[in-house]
Parts: sequence; structure tokens; C-alpha cells
Amino acid sequence: MSSSFGKIFSVTTWGESHGPAVGAVLDGCPAGLPISEEMIQAELNRRRPGQGKVTTARNEKDTVKILSGVFEGKTTGTPISFVVMNEDQHSNDYADIAKWYRPGHADLCYDLKYGFRDYRGGGRSSARETIGRVAAGAVAKAFLKVVAGTEFLSWVASVGEIDCPKPDVSKLTLEQIEASPVRCPDEDASKMMEATILEAKSNGDSVGGTVSLYIKNVPVALGEPVFDRLDALLAQAMLSIPACKGFEIGSGFAAARMRGSIHNDKIYAKDNTYHTCTNNAGGSLGGISNGEPIYCRMAFKPTATISKPQDTAGRGYENGELAAKGRHDPCVAVRAPVIVESMAALVLADLYLQQERNHCLGTENAKAKIEALIQNQKTREAIDKLP
Amino acid sequence: MSSSFGKIFSVTTWGESHGPAVGAVLDGCPAGLPISEEMIQAELNRRRPGQGKVTTARNEKDTVKILSGVFEGKTTGTPISFVVMNEDQHSNDYADIAKWYRPGHADLCYDLKYGFRDYRGGGRSSARETIGRVAAGAVAKAFLKVVAGTEFLSWVASVGEIDCPKPDVSKLTLEQIEASPVRCPDEDASKMMEATILEAKSNGDSVGGTVSLYIKNVPVALGEPVFDRLDALLAQAMLSIPACKGFEIGSGFAAARMRGSIHNDKIYAKDNTYHTCTNNAGGSLGGISNGEPIYCRMAFKPTATISKPQDTAGRGYENGELAAKGRHDPCVAVRAPVIVESMAALVLADLYLQQERNHCLGTENAKAKIEALIQNQKTREAIDKLP
Amino acid sequence: MSSSFGKIFSVTTWGESHGPAVGAVLDGCPAGLPISEEMIQAELNRRRPGQGKVTTARNEKDTVKILSGVFEGKTTGTPISFVVMNEDQHSNDYADIAKWYRPGHADLCYDLKYGFRDYRGGGRSSARETIGRVAAGAVAKAFLKVVAGTEFLSWVASVGEIDCPKPDVSKLTLEQIEASPVRCPDEDASKMMEATILEAKSNGDSVGGTVSLYIKNVPVALGEPVFDRLDALLAQAMLSIPACKGFEIGSGFAAARMRGSIHNDKIYAKDNTYHTCTNNAGGSLGGISNGEPIYCRMAFKPTATISKPQDTAGRGYENGELAAKGRHDPCVAVRAPVIVESMAALVLADLYLQQERNHCLGTENAKAKIEALIQNQKTREAIDKLP
Amino acid sequence: MSSSFGKIFSVTTWGESHGPAVGAVLDGCPAGLPISEEMIQAELNRRRPGQGKVTTARNEKDTVKILSGVFEGKTTGTPISFVVMNEDQHSNDYADIAKWYRPGHADLCYDLKYGFRDYRGGGRSSARETIGRVAAGAVAKAFLKVVAGTEFLSWVASVGEIDCPKPDVSKLTLEQIEASPVRCPDEDASKMMEATILEAKSNGDSVGGTVSLYIKNVPVALGEPVFDRLDALLAQAMLSIPACKGFEIGSGFAAARMRGSIHNDKIYAKDNTYHTCTNNAGGSLGGISNGEPIYCRMAFKPTATISKPQDTAGRGYENGELAAKGRHDPCVAVRAPVIVESMAALVLADLYLQQERNHCLGTENAKAKIEALIQNQKTREAIDKLP
Repeated sequence: MSSSFGKIFSVTTWGESHGPAVGAVLDGCPAGLPISEEMIQAELNRRRPGQGKVTTARNEKDTVKILSGVFEGKTTGTPISFVVMNEDQHSNDYADIAKWYRPGHADLCYDLKYGFRDYRGGGRSSARETIGRVAAGAVAKAFLKVVAGTEFLSWVASVGEIDCPKPDVSKLTLEQIEASPVRCPDEDASKMMEATILEAKSNGDSVGGTVSLYIKNVPVALGEPVFDRLDALLAQAMLSIPACKGFEIGSGFAAARMRGSIHNDKIYAKDNTYHTCTNNAGGSLGGISNGEPIYCRMAFKPTATISKPQDTAGRGYENGELAAKGRHDPCVAVRAPVIVESMAALVLADLYLQQERNHCLGTENAKAKIEALIQNQKTREAIDKLP
Repeated sequence: MSSSFGKIFSVTTWGESHGPAVGAVLDGCPAGLPISEEMIQAELNRRRPGQGKVTTARNEKDTVKILSGVFEGKTTGTPISFVVMNEDQHSNDYADIAKWYRPGHADLCYDLKYGFRDYRGGGRSSARETIGRVAAGAVAKAFLKVVAGTEFLSWVASVGEIDCPKPDVSKLTLEQIEASPVRCPDEDASKMMEATILEAKSNGDSVGGTVSLYIKNVPVALGEPVFDRLDALLAQAMLSIPACKGFEIGSGFAAARMRGSIHNDKIYAKDNTYHTCTNNAGGSLGGISNGEPIYCRMAFKPTATISKPQDTAGRGYENGELAAKGRHDPCVAVRAPVIVESMAALVLADLYLQQERNHCLGTENAKAKIEALIQNQKTREAIDKLP
Repeated sequence: MSSSFGKIFSVTTWGESHGPAVGAVLDGCPAGLPISEEMIQAELNRRRPGQGKVTTARNEKDTVKILSGVFEGKTTGTPISFVVMNEDQHSNDYADIAKWYRPGHADLCYDLKYGFRDYRGGGRSSARETIGRVAAGAVAKAFLKVVAGTEFLSWVASVGEIDCPKPDVSKLTLEQIEASPVRCPDEDASKMMEATILEAKSNGDSVGGTVSLYIKNVPVALGEPVFDRLDALLAQAMLSIPACKGFEIGSGFAAARMRGSIHNDKIYAKDNTYHTCTNNAGGSLGGISNGEPIYCRMAFKPTATISKPQDTAGRGYENGELAAKGRHDPCVAVRAPVIVESMAALVLADLYLQQERNHCLGTENAKAKIEALIQNQKTREAIDKLP
Repeated sequence: MSSSFGKIFSVTTWGESHGPAVGAVLDGCPAGLPISEEMIQAELNRRRPGQGKVTTARNEKDTVKILSGVFEGKTTGTPISFVVMNEDQHSNDYADIAKWYRPGHADLCYDLKYGFRDYRGGGRSSARETIGRVAAGAVAKAFLKVVAGTEFLSWVASVGEIDCPKPDVSKLTLEQIEASPVRCPDEDASKMMEATILEAKSNGDSVGGTVSLYIKNVPVALGEPVFDRLDALLAQAMLSIPACKGFEIGSGFAAARMRGSIHNDKIYAKDNTYHTCTNNAGGSLGGISNGEPIYCRMAFKPTATISKPQDTAGRGYENGELAAKGRHDPCVAVRAPVIVESMAALVLADLYLQQERNHCLGTENAKAKIEALIQNQKTREAIDKLP
């Protein structure tokens, strides 16, 4: 259970990698938001496999259909149902996996938990499950764009030992990131990362990486003390992505080495708004957004399924060796940015509606309110204050 | 809102630092569990202030009362209400804080969110809120101890630039940890940490730190795909603790630099149970516990409130300077371990009941089941397989 | 929002009457339960329209597809996704309804709430939304049948002024009920009800009715004090069905006229089980099932959409008259029994899992437990103790 | 578990009749609402026992303390904790009840569920649990009064066979109702009801009754399709009150006997607002409030605990007889109105915040919005349109 996320803007995903389809139901989206299959598709295209040498060869178009909740191009306030049919399945690749547990994979745990599993591919633990998150996340982004001008940027910050130099986020664009086959905005680092991934792939191996997320025009006052703090929900959202094993926000682990006088972001008031001189907090204090950009970083472990032989055990407690077949991403971090953005957008949209509910975007009253919100939104010519 | 945590084993905390009392209500605890005020008090004593030179001088006994849910020494299955009266309040310390926003603190965000706040101390963002978590966490620990023999160890792994060498967890005890004034089990590191904290304190400053958590005898199969993965809920739980800004499980951020062939933990079967040779996963695969120890690490930023003067702004958009009075911990990490253990126990107890509900511990049937569970629990003479 | 129901065994429905499809996602169903599209279809066939003169002429096969969560004929523990394509839509019937608010219908309220609605048919308030409930309810019934032998019977107890005499529930069968075109097990009453409905229909009118529900082999101890009492959740479940305006359990409103000495059901013990001599409680005391049959009764108002002209107002505050076109049930109570059973099954399955979680039906351990549960289940030769 | 109610405006109650105290935590109340212990106390005084011959002789002041969430007379947006100490306990009255299960009472079910119970009084099933609901409900009422001018009236509509004639609700006042010892606004009926109760009491018996609820100035558009319909949540709320066994809204069960052309409430527009000529819907269509008064009716069974001897069984499966001692209400309906109002207010406040969140009542912006809402609220000179 718990395939649902969000208290008000709430998504439920469903589907396995080798079943007929995957999808999601998004409940709680306000009425009147312009939505189309094209905008959802554009986001799904960023996560779909078969995009180049550094991703899995599994080639699927991942064409999305909206089955409910949208009428005359706008959301109606009722649940939005998305479906994507599964297409390029090679179930025969999975004979070995049915017998042997992949080290580092969820196989064993699913059997321990459910006594039984769909052994074709990862079943429910497959990255295809994230399709539903990206579809719903696309709506969340559209919503946040309308009500607050919020924008999301996510990129690969490291692959193995190769680090991307910290980008100038005031100039960074989605196009720059997506132009790199490994989604790293630095050209030199991008090339080295690509080489690292291909080398791992050619050895039947995989490699880990980190992903950075930067969100600007974040509405102030989002986050619910004490358990649904903004930081806490972002952490849950990120760690819920397959292969994510670490999360830090603002200065993160580096903050643990600092003195308070250095770490505390000085506050100043200007034009009846509050700003900070630095952003070690990463946009969240006391679990509540302060209007500064959210900045966080996630660690992704290397893909568990590799073709190199590994010692492991089987369903009947026998010990042996597995060299996994199948088509797998050698580095999951490369496809993670759009998933990271989607999960963050789902968190923010839900917290926004908890903070300020606005059911009907179509009325004059609501429009005025939205315009006021957007103007209130601090204009940030200089958003280069990243930690 | 969202002062509640857990779907079945669910705690709700309440209270401000300068109100009459703080407390918690724990709903969903199975009936028949032996509970006493003494065992709760023992845990609260580990977190209470006034324990030495490295913590705040605020001196409170934090005496807990149980007001409901326990009859003849055992839980009845109904809500357990805990209350701790506030005692040693110096509200007059807070005149400045009412006017100026503390940099790095929640003050500004509470005003942005609620338009108004209890400016005496941190109000709801005070660390005193965690009293309710520790009280409920003590029950969670007692429950897990009975049903699975689960044990928790948490210690300070670094303060500023001082690192504690990785301990031999097979020999590490709670007594060793608690014997150190900074809760660091390594004697040399403990002394250097203490010196670091006192030096920061004498400068009117504060310092950050990291805290490690190690859990053994973890029941298998805990964690609910996909959004309530074990890793994800632990991350949320930890980031919900005031001042926590980072979380990693198993190899964590180091995993992002590894190859899959190195990172994947080899599986072997022995005596009809599965084990892994290493524990890079930190006890969780696919978001589900595999029975290996849970191992994770949290980053705590330096205390925001310091007496060193800092630039900041006030409620009326005026710019100025604040040198905060009041009695504050110079390093919050030092008091974090029991809170970290409590939050982890709340996560595991809730996931345990989601996986296997067992309402009445007192019946013969349930006893037999618990004995079977404990025996199933892998005996681990050698738990020194930590990453 | 709130298209989800149930804390653990949790269904989310989606879809509008005139969108491409309707469906549901069922999360939290234990693994190992045998499920097929055929068994879901059999239940859907009981609710589908076009079954005779007393139901709407809209003729749809309502063919269900399972898109996830079932592998090799058994549930996997992951979300089960159901979809039913909409087929026989006559959107042109709805030109008037787009302009005029139907008296007694949700039209006006949807506009007040969302500022905008899918005016073709009832949109989300259409009875087609209940398809998802019946699909998920079929799984709930299958689950309860396996774990406790639970059985559901629901019938039409009155239509307009025609009452069905209280049936002998010890002999009553589903076949008897379904043999009647109005789902009334008494032949004479059935004929009079049919005549009443056809008379209303021929006058362009509609008529109300009541529906009874009887559940035997109810597991003991279901229901969570204090807000999720068994009675309270059944009431919510029933009132959530379109057109339902009243609920009573056991003696219900008649109890309010009784003395305690008459109303209290005497308890006796026999063969180490407890029984009651009467069942004025309707199977629930203190909000917890006592093992006696659940017996409750629901009031359904007459269908709002009628072709008789009615005074009403339009979207632009104009006053006028509407004679609604379209094909509508003259008496919704007639199609309600399978929906009533489904909602009750969803309540019981969720409460069962809250009381006693059992994830994997396939293991030996679980099988033994289930057999014990079934044997514990009081055998009731005489279940004719209905109030 | 499930001692919590409400998604956003969420109350958690705790406490047993014979433990040290009872109380509640209210989370999610917007900041800035004026609240005092006096206003809570005034509501509690309406439900407290010892008010006359027709209620239990248990005499408790039920003095409430607010322990958190209120600062300088206003809510802070953080959890509000209420506590009421238990005082007048006669635990020795309960020796028999520890041994024998009271027919019609929750005793047996608590033992079946938890294997064990606090046998002094009703424990958690005691009516004292409702103290927490009334305290939180008082805040909900205050909130709704401020944002929408909402007013609640509840009275005893029948006791045994004595019915109160339908009052003219346009003139009915709380004072009129509370002036009657049985809370029946009709003088003659009040006297007959009192006689009925005293006669039952003198026979060691008890008697049932019904309670009516009328709410005016209900905000429009409250209720979340499909499972959290306004009707459905009201039904759950009412059936969660101890001894409630039936609920109907608007015409309720009478609607089941009507034709649609009679039942449908005609709509008319006037001054850019919509009204209905009758109110058979009871203020809710499609599960959403239409702005008309909410009108519903609840059935309360007779008190289970009576001193008349009754056949029953004991904990060890022995059969015998119980003549219960202790001081019990002979007719629980008499003390129900304030509880009924409180539960309804909790439902409406939660749905209001789901529909329209407004965290900070203190800001100019929010004030303007509230004033607009109040003016939008239909003025209803003639609210005598009750069914």
C-alpha cells in the first residue's frame, strides 16, 4: 500500500513494468487549470528510455492518455487519470531473475514482504512506476507556474568520481541541461561523465551519481510544522525515488562542520519584503519556505542490475551466481532530473494548497488573487546566492 | 497542522516552549504492552537540558505524567496521553527576539505563515516540542523490543571538524555513548568535541555536528512501496527534527561514487535465512527492510540562536542587529541521539503494524506468534558488517 | 478531492459519465488473493444499466480490464487498476442541462464549488462513478470470503409506498433477489414495486426507495473507536452513494422509541463463544462488531432528473423551466444493492486489516491462521435473529 | 486507533472515564482566532452531568484548561491542547461490571478487540470521551461564526413515544432549548418527556430518543466528492457519537416514499444568488452544501447500563444475571445536543478549510475576504422552509 502521496494535491500511482500499463490518478487539483496531453508528454519524453547510449535500450514511446478530470482543456477539480501502455517488453530476459535474487535489488525484499512477486523485470519496483509521478508532477508544475511563477531546474551534479562545477544558476536553463546526454550543464564534465558511464557499461557494470535541484519563485510560508516540514517532505519525496540513498538541503552535510555565525543567513528587509544575504538554509527555515530558492542534492546509488556475474542466493535458499540479462540503465542518475523535479513539484503544490486553498482559478476573484500573489513574489534578478 | 506522524502507530505532539506544558498523544499502540512512567522518564532524562557545560543552562526536570491509555501497567489499545509541565522559563530573556528575527531561525517564517507568533522562545519550533516525540518513541521502542528484540544505538559522529572514528558496533553499548558528555563513544574524539563546543560557546557562537543511528534486529519486510519506503519515511522523520539538514542511509552519498559491482551487497542463504556479505544498502532495498541492521547518518546545522551580534531585520521591515540573549545549546547534535532513536522507532513501529497487526499481546496465540517472530529474527553474533 | 476511501485497503475512483472511461485503483489488498476479470465483471453486471424497463435505457456493457496488481491469477500486494471504457454516450441529450440547473441535482453545487463543470450528464456526480466502487468492492468481498466466510445480501425493501415484508434471512439467497426486476425478494411486493416505477416513469417522474443490507459471518472485533466506529464508517460509506439520504443500523430509529430493558440484546455464552438472543444492535456495539450479523437500512431519494417540467434557474441567474431529456433511472434504489454491498465490503476489509494484517495469503503460516479464523467464526445454524 | 477526526481541522481525543483526565488536541485551526477557556467552558457546561433529575448523578465540574496553541487570547496556528481532570469517580460501583458483560454495552466488544479493558466505567467507550469533542467543537463553532456567521441549533425531538412538534426554526433560540430540562423547546412535550424519563429511571430502566440539528448560514460549496460528501461526513460524525444508531438528512427516510417531482427543491435566482423554494435536500446536493440550512435528525438508543436485572455472560463464558450499579443517564439523548452541534461544527470547519484555506485571520487581506464572505452569505429572512 501507500502508493498515494500528498494530503490535498494527492497522486496515486499504479502499474508494473511488465503488466499491460502504468499510470496515476491525481486527486485534489483545483479546477480551471489549463492542461493538455502534449504538456504531460513533453515531460514524459524527458524521462523515457532509449534516448542514447547512456540509457537502457528498452525503447518505449510512453504515450500518455488523459482519461478523466479535464474538460474543454481545463481541469474540472475531479480526479485526473493518466494511462501509459507498456510496449517494448522482453519478458524472456527475466528467466534468471525469476530464480536468483539480484544483489542490491528489491527482488528478495518483495518476496519477503509479499511471499510472491511479478518476477518479470522489477515489477512494482521498476523505474517505470515513476511515469505516473512525472505525469502528475507535470500538472503540479503547471499549477505552481500559474499561481506563483515557480520554476524548477535539476541536473546531474556528479557521476562516479566526476563532479560538475557549480553552475551559475542565474543563467542556467533547462535547454542547457537537456542538451547534454548525461544532463550535466558543464560541457567538459558532461563528456567525462559520458565516458565514465560507457566504460562501466562496457564492463557489464553500473555507476552512481548525484542530482541537484534548484527551485526559484518558491511561494513563502509553505511547510507544515512539525512532521510535514518542507525539508522533511522533500526528503521523503526524494528518498521515495528508486535508488536514492541520500538527501541534503542548503549547506546540508557541510553545515555540520560550520559555526552558527557563518551558517546563519543574515536577513535584510527591502521594499517591504525580507531577503537573506546567503542561502545556507536552502530556502527553508523551521521547515517553512522563506521565499529564497530551494536548493537540494540527492545521491543515487549505481543500478543494481548488472551483467557482471555476482554471488547471490535463490528462492529455495540455494547459493549461486547471477549474470543478469536484460536492458538496464548503466547510470540511473541520468534519467532522474525530471523525476526529481516532479516529486518536488508534488510536494510544493500540496503544501501550497494546505497553506492557501484556491479551488476555482477561473473566477475574477481568484484571478486577482493570483496576480497579487505573483506580484508579491519577490523579483529576483540576482538569484546567484546559492550556497 | 500536521503535528501527527504515523498511519497506525500515530503520535500527535503539542505544546510551546513558554506555554504551560508540552505533550503528546499516541494512538494505535496495541493493547497489552507493559508501560510505566519510569521507562518514559528514563528516555526523557537523556534529552533534557541542563546536563552539563555543553548543553543549555535551562534546567528542567521534564517529569512526565501518563493521563490515559494505560491500566494496571499495560496499554489498553486506547490513546496514551503524555504531559510534561514547563518549569524553568525566563520569558524576559526574549524581549529582543519579539522585535528582531533571529537569522537562521524559524521566527520570520512563522510570522510569514501565521501572521503572528508566540515570540517567547521558539514557540512551537522550540526543541521542547521533541519531548512528545521521545515519550511516544519510548513506547515504540518497548513495542519493538517485545515483538522483535529490536535495539537502537545513536551517537554523535562529528562536531565541527572533529570526527569520531567508526565504532565497532558489535561491541558498542548505550552506556559507552551516554558516558561521554557529547555522546561520542570515542574518548579522544569526545574530548576534542567538548573543547570545540566550549570554544564556540565562549565566543557566543555555536557549532554543527552529525549523528549516526544503528538499529539491529530489524524485522524483515518493513516499508511500504512506493511513497512510504523505509528509507523515505526515515528521511522524513529525521528531517522533521529541528536543525536537521541532511540524511543518508547505508553508503549514502558515497554510493554515488561507486560502481554497482562494488556497491551491491552479495546475498547468501544459510539456515533458511538470507544474509548479505556487506551492508551498503543500510538495511533497506526497494524501500523494504531486508533484516540487516539499519545504518544512517544525519547532519545537524549549528544552533541558530547565538549571542554574537548579527545583522537582521525586524517585524516592521527595519534593518538592524541582534545579539540574542537566552540560554541555548551551543551544539544541538549533542542532545539529538535520543530524538533520532525515537523518530526511527516511531517509523518502524508504524511500518511493523502496517505489515503485521497484532492487537493483543496478552493472548496465548499472540505470544506464540511473537516467539516465532523472535526466533525467525536472524541471530547475528557478528554485526560488524557495517559499511 | 477525497476520491479515496479506506486507510489500508484503500480505493481511489476516477472518471466522469461522458469522459473516455471510468475506473478505480485499489491499494493495500494483501498479496496472494485469487482474482479474475470474470469475478469483477459478474458484480459489474449487477449494476450496469439497460437491464429492463425499470432502469435507464443507456446500454453499456461496462467491460472491465485489470491493468496492474494481478500476476498469474493472484494479487501481488501492489495497486490493482481497473478501467471501464464509456460507450453509449448521447452527449447531445444534455444541451438543456448545460444551461439550466436540474432541481434536486448536483449541477448547481458543482458550479458553486468549482466554478465550472462537465455539463454532459452528471460528470463526476454520475452514478457511473460507482463502477469503480463495485470493482474494488468485488475484491473486498473475495478477500472477506477467504479470511472469514463473510457473505453479503442486499435487497430493495421499499419503493414509494410499497414495502417488502421482512424476509427470512436464513433462507434468503442472492438468486432470489436478482430474479426480481426490482431486486425485491417478495414476489407480490416486487410486482407492485415494478408497477409503481413504471407508472412514475410514464408520468415523466421518478420514485424513491429503501435498501436493506444483511451481512453474515462478520469477523468479530472490527471497528476502531472512536471516530472510525463500524457504524460510523458504514454510515459514511452509505451516505457517500449518490441519492442516499438516510442510514440506520439494527433497530435504528425504532430504537429511539424503546426502553433499554427491551432494546439491550441479552448475551449468552456457548461453546466458548458469545452470542446474543436478539440483534437490536445490528451487529455492532461500541462501534465494534460482536460477531452477530450486520443489519442496516438506507433511504434513497427519487432520481433528480425527470422529464416533467420543473421551475429552476440558469447559469446567468435567469429563472425558467426545465424538462430534462436524457435516459435516466426512474428509481435508483433498484440498482443500489450491489453498490451497497460493495461499500460495506470496502469498510469491513479495511477494518479487518486494521485489526489483523495478513499480507501474504499464500504461505503455510497464513493458511493455518485463516483456517483458525474461519473455525473461530461462530457457526450460526439459526441466523434468523434479525431485529 | 482512529481517535482523530478531520483532514485539516483535525481533533484527536484521549482519555477514559476513570483515568486521571480526558482531553483533546486540535491541530490545523487557523491563527488569529480569539479563543478563551470561558467560551470552551460554556459549551462543556451544556454537556456536563449532574444537571438535574433526568441526567446521571455523577457530579463533575469538567473544568477545562488550555495547555497550548493560544497566545495573547488568539490561536497561533499550532495545536491547541485541552485537558479536563476527572473528579467524581466511584470506581467501587464497577465490581460487577468487571465480571459480567453489560447487554447492549461495548464491554464484550472491547474484550474481544483488545483482550483486556479498563473495566471501571465504560473506559474509552464512556460518554466522557465526548468532552474532547465538545472542547474542539467550541473552537470550530467560533471559527465558523467569524468566517461565515454560521449558527447551530440542536434539540431533543423525541423521547420514547413522545414527539416534539416541529418548531418554527426562524424563531427558535438556544435559550429556549436549554430552558427545558430535556432540551425540548415545546413546553408540553418537554413535560411529557421528563415524565417518561423519570418513569423509566424509577423502574431501573432507560429510554431512547431522537435529536434534531439545524444549521443556518452554512457556507456554500462545502463537501468533497465522492467519499467525503457533506452528508457522508455528517453521518460518520453523528454515528460516531455513543448510542447513535440512525441518521437522516433533509427529508431522509420520508424521501424514499416520495416522487421526484415532489421531492426536488425548485431553484430560483434572486439578487445574483441561488435559493430553493423547499429544503427536502437538507442543505446538501451531490454531497455539497447549496447554502440552504442543513437539517438532519439522529436516533439514540436507550442507555445500555440499567439497574434492572438482565441475563448476560461473564468473562469466563459463564452465564448469569447482571443488575448494574453506578450512576447512569436514563436517556442519553438529553445530553446529546451540544455533542451533535460540536461534531457538525468539526465537519464544517474541516470542509471549509479544504474548500478555502485562510491561515491568518489577523491580516487586512484576510479580514476583507471574510467580510466579503459574510456579505455573500445569503441573508435569510425566511428560514422557515424546513421540510
